[in-house]
Amino acid sequence: MKRTFHPGEFSWEGVQTAGYKATGERDGAGFRGVTRHVISGANGEPSQFQLRYFEVEPGGYTRLERHEHIHSVTVIRGKGYAVVGDTVHPIENFDHIYVGPMTLHQFVNTGDTPFGFLCIVDAQRDRAQPATPDEVARLERNAPTAGKTRV
Amino acid sequence: MKRTFHPGEFSWEGVQTAGYKATGERDGAGFRGVTRHVISGANGEPSQFQLRYFEVEPGGYTRLERHEHIHSVTVIRGKGYAVVGDTVHPIENFDHIYVGPMTLHQFVNTGDTPFGFLCIVDAQRDRAQPATPDEVARLERNAPTAGKTRV
Repeated sequence: MKRTFHPGEFSWEGVQTAGYKATGERDGAGFRGVTRHVISGANGEPSQFQLRYFEVEPGGYTRLERHEHIHSVTVIRGKGYAVVGDTVHPIENFDHIYVGPMTLHQFVNTGDTPFGFLCIVDAQRDRAQPATPDEVARLERNAPTAGKTRV
Repeated sequence: MKRTFHPGEFSWEGVQTAGYKATGERDGAGFRGVTRHVISGANGEPSQFQLRYFEVEPGGYTRLERHEHIHSVTVIRGKGYAVVGDTVHPIENFDHIYVGPMTLHQFVNTGDTPFGFLCIVDAQRDRAQPATPDEVARLERNAPTAGKTRV
């Protein structure tokens, strides 16, 4: 089956644009201006993974969070940075980011165009946990991440 | 961890360029001019999937084959077509192809530049089976795929 890509809308045929969080949290709950597009794995495909596309508008960011499952992220649009643990990685086309288990991470758009990336996860996975205030404070004291997180 | 993308070589830092088949078959064994690059899942990452990038040179093609595991394919370079079952799909940036269980499939470069795509698979998966001569003959009698397969 083909899901045709539409460059104008940067969308895929038959793939709905959804809110960032499947669990329903609203914009402002630690993230801003993010949409989620599940390209494969949400329609009964017999696979152990899901492929999603996330798009972050200018000024937007994903939630600073962690979980046991890993992320395999490939940037396909725009530019930004990824906070991963105690490090900040500037990223753009087609840089890849691996986020290991229970590692705090956040994706931030630094451009004036949409910032988008493919993100693969295990189909069976644990729920994400937002960073605690203590963890945010610790990242503020860590030179590479100071001023980089968004809450 | 970041794997920086190098646009000039179209490669990722720390990702080796390997032969198409992990099982060692050589160019000419039903495929031509294909390289494989395992971006994530080959270094002990605790995930149920692997992310690979395949690149097909002009005139090249992957092997016409099938297996129980599925493919989730996203084109990121050049253009070509995918034979999937009895159908042929022209594909280019960032079209997505889903290949279901035991469905014959083949990717063919139709351009004069490299044709490349990301391909996600389950980490635990069965071995691919090449199309039989009878199946190739059947695809030749099927109007949409006639003249489209390469062996």
